[in-house]
Amino acid sequence: MQVLILGSGAGGGLPQWNCGCPQCLAARAGRPSVSPRTQSSIAVSADGERWALFNCSPDVRAQLAATPELHPRSLRDATVRAVALSNADIDHAAGLLVLREGGAPPVYCTPRVRRALTEGLRVLPALAAYGEVAVREVTPGEWVTLRDKANEDLGLRARAFTVASKPPPYLAPLLSADEAADLHAGDTVGWCVSAGEGHPSLVYVPGVKVLDEVLRAELAAASLVLIDGTCFTDDEMVELGASTKTAQAMGHAPITGDGGTLDFLRGIEGPRRVLVHLNNTNPVLDEASGAYRVVRDAGVEVARAGARFTG
Amino acid sequence: MQVLILGSGAGGGLPQWNCGCPQCLAARAGRPSVSPRTQSSIAVSADGERWALFNCSPDVRAQLAATPELHPRSLRDATVRAVALSNADIDHAAGLLVLREGGAPPVYCTPRVRRALTEGLRVLPALAAYGEVAVREVTPGEWVTLRDKANEDLGLRARAFTVASKPPPYLAPLLSADEAADLHAGDTVGWCVSAGEGHPSLVYVPGVKVLDEVLRAELAAASLVLIDGTCFTDDEMVELGASTKTAQAMGHAPITGDGGTLDFLRGIEGPRRVLVHLNNTNPVLDEASGAYRVVRDAGVEVARAGARFTG
Repeated sequence: MQVLILGSGAGGGLPQWNCGCPQCLAARAGRPSVSPRTQSSIAVSADGERWALFNCSPDVRAQLAATPELHPRSLRDATVRAVALSNADIDHAAGLLVLREGGAPPVYCTPRVRRALTEGLRVLPALAAYGEVAVREVTPGEWVTLRDKANEDLGLRARAFTVASKPPPYLAPLLSADEAADLHAGDTVGWCVSAGEGHPSLVYVPGVKVLDEVLRAELAAASLVLIDGTCFTDDEMVELGASTKTAQAMGHAPITGDGGTLDFLRGIEGPRRVLVHLNNTNPVLDEASGAYRVVRDAGVEVARAGARFTG
Repeated sequence: MQVLILGSGAGGGLPQWNCGCPQCLAARAGRPSVSPRTQSSIAVSADGERWALFNCSPDVRAQLAATPELHPRSLRDATVRAVALSNADIDHAAGLLVLREGGAPPVYCTPRVRRALTEGLRVLPALAAYGEVAVREVTPGEWVTLRDKANEDLGLRARAFTVASKPPPYLAPLLSADEAADLHAGDTVGWCVSAGEGHPSLVYVPGVKVLDEVLRAELAAASLVLIDGTCFTDDEMVELGASTKTAQAMGHAPITGDGGTLDFLRGIEGPRRVLVHLNNTNPVLDEASGAYRVVRDAGVEVARAGARFTG
C-alpha cells in the first residue's frame, strides 16, 4: 500500500490568502525552513495505478498536477477512482467540484456528511449535473471494500470510526438543537485503511477534538498514523491576534499541553506517527523552530506535501 | 487602473486532472512553449492596494499566493476587497469558498447568478456561516461603484452587460422550461470596468456564445478586451475524442471559422485584444503551434497567468 501526502495544511493552507502571520510571510518569502502547504488530503493505492483520495481539498487540481503517480495515462483517465471523506468541511470536501469533468468518482462518507453536502453546500446534487455520482454511505465500525465507478475492487479496505466532533459551520443552522449537540453523529470520522487482513494499516485522523481511549486503540493497532496537528498550543491563534477561538473551540486537540497530542502519542510507540492538517499559525511549520524540535524529539514527524509512505 | 491575469484557463485548467491531451501532456512535462494555466479570473485595481476580482476560480488560493500585489500587508488583510462574477460556473465562482476566512468580500452579480449560488450550489448561504457576506445585485446596463465591505469606494466603476448564455448545468434542473430557455436572463454577463469617466476601460468577457452587435459596440469602445478563447475550432473536443460537445454547444464561440472570434475581432482594431478562458484542448496554448501563430498574426494576444496591463 502506498500513501502520498497531497496536502498537509489546515483550511486556508500555507500561505493563507489573507494571513500575514510569521509562517505565511516565510512561506511567501521562500524561506527554506518553511515549505508551503496545500490543504489537507492524502492519496492511497494498493497497486500504484488506481488511487483513492481521503478528503478532497480545494487545492486538488494543483495537488494532482504535482504528483506524477496520479497523472492520467490516456486521453481521459481518472486515476482518482474513489474519494473517502473524513468530514464535510470545505477544506476537505469542496475539491469534489474540481473532479466533475467526466463525472466525479464514487464518494464514501457517513450519512451526516452526505447530508451536509446535499442540504448544506449542495456539492453532491451539483456534481450530479455533470455525470452520475455514486455516494456510498458508510457505517462507522464497519469495513468496506473501496470500489471504483464500475464497482471494481481497488484492493483497499477501509473502516471509518467516529470521533467526537461538531457539524461544519454551514450545516449547523440547518440542524435541530439535538442534532447539533450530538458529538458522535458522524460529522467527523477517522479512517483505518489497509490492503487486506494481515497487511499494514494506516490510520488517518486529520481532525480530532477529543483524544479518547477508542482513538488510542485505533492508533496503537496501526502501522502508520497521520493525525491532527492543527495548532501547537491551544491558544495560539488568540495569542497571535488572528482569532478569538482556541484550537479546542475549533474542534482540534492542541499538540502540546496536558492531554495534548504529543502526550497522547507518547504511549503509542509502535506506529510511525506523523502530524497533518497543520494550521498556518502553527510554529512547527518552520523546521528551524523550537516547536519543530519539540515534536521531532518526541519521535513524531511533521508531514510535508509530497511525502510518500509504503507499508 | 491595473489589470492582472490571475488565470487564463477554462474549467479544469491546464493541465486538467483527468486529461492526457497534447497540451496537458506538454504542460506536465514542462515544455517551455506551453505554460500551465490556472482557471479563469482577473484582478483589477485603481490604486494598486485594494483589488477587485472578476470571477473567483477554485485556484484562487494558488493565484493569490503567486501574485505579490495581492499579498496581505498585515496580520489579517484581505487585499481582495470585492468579487464580481460573470456567471455562476464552478470555474468562475467556487473559489468564493476559499475566501471564507475572515468573511468573504462583497459579491457583485446578477439576480440569476445569485439564485444559482443560493439554490443551486448554496455557496452564498454556506459562506454566510463564516461571516456576513454582502451580495450586491447588479442590473445589466447600469454602472455601479465597486465598494468594499465597509462600503468604501474602491475607485472602480463597473457595468455588466448581458450576453446570450445558458444556465450552469447544476442550476438547469431547478429552472422552469421558460426560465431555462431565456438566453438573456443574466446567466452570463460581460463586464466593462474603468477607474472613472474618461479613463481607459477594460471589457472582460470570458464566456460568450453569440458574437453580436451589442458586444461589438462594447469591445470597440474599450482600451483593453479580454475575451473568450475557449476553443480554436468548434469541433476541437469532438475531433480529439475528449467530448461529444462542440464549443458552441458548451456556450463558447470558437476562435476560427466563419463568424468566429478572430473574424469578429478583425473589425475592432482600437483596443488591445487578448484571449482568455482557454480550454486545455486548445492548440493556441502551445506557443510553438500554427494555431498560436494564426492568432498572433491577426494582432490578437493569448493571455498567460501573471500578465499585467496598465491603462
